Amino acid sequence: KNPIALIAGPCVIEDRERTLKIGRGIKAIADRLGIPYIFKASYDKANRSSYQSFRGPGLKDGLETLDFIKKELGVPVLSDIHDITQVEPAAAVLDVLQIPAFLCRQTDLVYSAGRTGRVVNVKKGQFLAPLDMKNVIAKIREAGNEKILLTERGFSFGYNNLVVDMRSLPIMRSLGYPVVFDATHSVQLPGGAGTTSSGQREFVSYLTRAAVGIGIDALFMEVHDNPAEALSDGPNMLYLDQLEDLLQDVLALDAVVRRHK
Amino acid sequence: KNPIALIAGPCVIEDRERTLKIGRGIKAIADRLGIPYIFKASYDKANRSSYQSFRGPGLKDGLETLDFIKKELGVPVLSDIHDITQVEPAAAVLDVLQIPAFLCRQTDLVYSAGRTGRVVNVKKGQFLAPLDMKNVIAKIREAGNEKILLTERGFSFGYNNLVVDMRSLPIMRSLGYPVVFDATHSVQLPGGAGTTSSGQREFVSYLTRAAVGIGIDALFMEVHDNPAEALSDGPNMLYLDQLEDLLQDVLALDAVVRRHK
Amino acid sequence: KNPIALIAGPCVIEDRERTLKIGRGIKAIADRLGIPYIFKASYDKANRSSYQSFRGPGLKDGLETLDFIKKELGVPVLSDIHDITQVEPAAAVLDVLQIPAFLCRQTDLVYSAGRTGRVVNVKKGQFLAPLDMKNVIAKIREAGNEKILLTERGFSFGYNNLVVDMRSLPIMRSLGYPVVFDATHSVQLPGGAGTTSSGQREFVSYLTRAAVGIGIDALFMEVHDNPAEALSDGPNMLYLDQLEDLLQDVLALDAVVRRHK
Amino acid sequence: KNPIALIAGPCVIEDRERTLKIGRGIKAIADRLGIPYIFKASYDKANRSSYQSFRGPGLKDGLETLDFIKKELGVPVLSDIHDITQVEPAAAVLDVLQIPAFLCRQTDLVYSAGRTGRVVNVKKGQFLAPLDMKNVIAKIREAGNEKILLTERGFSFGYNNLVVDMRSLPIMRSLGYPVVFDATHSVQLPGGAGTTSSGQREFVSYLTRAAVGIGIDALFMEVHDNPAEALSDGPNMLYLDQLEDLLQDVLALDAVVRRHK
Repeated sequence: KNPIALIAGPCVIEDRERTLKIGRGIKAIADRLGIPYIFKASYDKANRSSYQSFRGPGLKDGLETLDFIKKELGVPVLSDIHDITQVEPAAAVLDVLQIPAFLCRQTDLVYSAGRTGRVVNVKKGQFLAPLDMKNVIAKIREAGNEKILLTERGFSFGYNNLVVDMRSLPIMRSLGYPVVFDATHSVQLPGGAGTTSSGQREFVSYLTRAAVGIGIDALFMEVHDNPAEALSDGPNMLYLDQLEDLLQDVLALDAVVRRHK
Repeated sequence: KNPIALIAGPCVIEDRERTLKIGRGIKAIADRLGIPYIFKASYDKANRSSYQSFRGPGLKDGLETLDFIKKELGVPVLSDIHDITQVEPAAAVLDVLQIPAFLCRQTDLVYSAGRTGRVVNVKKGQFLAPLDMKNVIAKIREAGNEKILLTERGFSFGYNNLVVDMRSLPIMRSLGYPVVFDATHSVQLPGGAGTTSSGQREFVSYLTRAAVGIGIDALFMEVHDNPAEALSDGPNMLYLDQLEDLLQDVLALDAVVRRHK
Repeated sequence: KNPIALIAGPCVIEDRERTLKIGRGIKAIADRLGIPYIFKASYDKANRSSYQSFRGPGLKDGLETLDFIKKELGVPVLSDIHDITQVEPAAAVLDVLQIPAFLCRQTDLVYSAGRTGRVVNVKKGQFLAPLDMKNVIAKIREAGNEKILLTERGFSFGYNNLVVDMRSLPIMRSLGYPVVFDATHSVQLPGGAGTTSSGQREFVSYLTRAAVGIGIDALFMEVHDNPAEALSDGPNMLYLDQLEDLLQDVLALDAVVRRHK
Repeated sequence: KNPIALIAGPCVIEDRERTLKIGRGIKAIADRLGIPYIFKASYDKANRSSYQSFRGPGLKDGLETLDFIKKELGVPVLSDIHDITQVEPAAAVLDVLQIPAFLCRQTDLVYSAGRTGRVVNVKKGQFLAPLDMKNVIAKIREAGNEKILLTERGFSFGYNNLVVDMRSLPIMRSLGYPVVFDATHSVQLPGGAGTTSSGQREFVSYLTRAAVGIGIDALFMEVHDNPAEALSDGPNMLYLDQLEDLLQDVLALDAVVRRHK
């Protein structure tokens, strides 16, 4: 029964200074609250709605920045991988390799991530029943890896909308691995803004409290000092200056339900 | 910022002794925990899957039993009405008139319930967007009644399944009325057992904690001393002897989030 | 293997002249094409989104108008019933008693409609799996009535949207009764216009052709000479002057698939 | 207004003889009926539910078999690509590069497929609104390619189920490119058999007729001489000996609706 952990950072690496600044801000809060912290940022947004959208610094520069932040802040780092060619260089830097939701059934990607021996965090596809994550788990175990995290980030609910089925959290926990709730992607409205996805930041704190009330192992949130300026996922990222208040609730709620975990 | 209230009782009035016994058991728990308690039971299950299923004692006998329980326990009573002919006799006994989910758009029923001046609890249809409850509210206000409760009990999610979209709780609260979470109907699997609905009792406590973590005004639960023997909704009712433990969590979680309500 | 039938008319009885005029227009087309025709109009819209919306002439005047049209045009008439008190007077005039989708599980209404011996057309609820119509059928058969029609009109698909699962047509046909496709309610966007439902008339002809390609027994459509002026369901009703063209396709498609029915 | 085309073949390349035999059987039918035919088979099933499942001969051997079939039968060939490293070798053999549904938003894969100048067939993701295919199209056009096909193969509908929203066919056609209906994947039940996907072959002919009744440009079907022995997608593939009968309906229905296309 470990304390709840936090996976957080900006959606995408924008520039080294800003990325570090956001990570530093989150780490200060996590330290004050005694929450284990894993830094998160993407080096490449490989499935943006639009071809024109900003994608990030790319694999090489991005991993360098992540390595820099890892050392600077002294925290583990997580990023998502999109292709088997990225697995090896990513595993040289990252502590946690994340499989994006759309790619959660790509056998080679999942298996090769497993082969690295790194922790693998799989986001459950917007099309996948929670119990079917057992097949994803089997692919990673086949690679000899038991260090698996399972993340809920919403399920398709008609067009341009997602719903979080909170039953998925205990269902995935019953598969034997820690469960993460992704509070900021769960409020995305995919394609909701025509050529980009929209989002409902106003529900992030509600869904976070709901998930923590159920009992989860970690919370995943994209956080930015000024989401209005963010180059990706602005509409659903949390403001850095609202994070501490929310995490105080998280800790208090987690203390109530921890005996059930 | 009132304390969270409890609406609870067996799904249907089975016989007077057992119904009273369940109500007395719940009341003792609510008293110990300082939770305001409203007794709930149906006099008629008007929309059972099957014609052969038990429906209850009917309007006259059922209201007599509810009146008896109201006096015996000294608590307000709630039951659901299905037809405008039932509104007047029901309002003579009941403190809260409940509009079943399937009937939430039946203008005459909703309006005439409003006309009685009693509290009206509307269950949101399994087909209704949370924001569309504003139109239901308008029908009751048109009848000169502001004593309205809005209840979430799940939304259609493919066939024979419901999902609770936790966003609906803050959305409905934003309409200006207290919001109730129905924890036991939300885990129904409609038609899931062929000629009856099935249910997933194992998720009741999880969804309850999630909803309370968001911030609600009341919790609705069907409770039975032995659901395995129950004449309706057995698969999703909560065991009476598990109620107190769950309500202790509810109070602790509510204390954390009350400032947000 | 009867020819495909047509159930059509305006959503609601507006005034006797206009209602008759629409019915006369449809009948002329049906006669030209050799399609059996049943006139449809509602005397009361009992579940409008908004309390302020037009509801129709009511039971007494409405049934008089339907009786007048029945005699004037020499066609059977269908209308929907909302309450057990309406069953007897409605059955005195109507050839087909229709159970609205929201009410398809109300045992008393369905059973008492069955008791009249009239044909009963049940619209499958937006929340009901096609196979679960077997339980609705059982309620009508329990009343000693085998004259049953089953209608598809869309299933809840996220908020403010419906989807037609075309598999429901063969599934319901496998239950042993004629199946109707409601082409104009299937394109409703429930609550999609804030205080009223919106609709997508542009998809009526597509969905009609799809359903006929599968193989159905009857087509249900709301038709108006000027939907822009209609007092209910304007956005999804078909223009009368587009009906004949669509029905020509219907007949040609039905001729191809009739051997499968 | 071209005649409707057929994209068909076994789900996966099993062995050269059997694959050729199936292709030859389909071609004979297509020739008799005058239907343009494109052979389809996968060289790698990159997203099987289970790690243990058969995946196919792999890129090199698979492309050789496809090249052999292309020459032997004298028909264009289509296969799906999963990774940017596969794009160039695949484009050297294939006439149509297919983007799998789960990968329809992977910018690099879509763009690089576009760069080859080959026809690109994009399967709409089970999570993607039909109108959002405009953003996928834009990525291919950005690569200087206008030879685009858009395929419907079902949308997530609760867990372990898909629904075909037939509105998607005219919506995607309105984007300006030919639209394909994938009749055999649309009846998959993803994960429906625990460690594999199940399927509902009994609905293939119904959905095919519905889609053709709407008006499509091509039909995609996986066909096998004995699906019970197939190494992938057995439960939803069509029997080769049922294909001609179904295609006769297709041609007759298409003749009726062609003027609308």
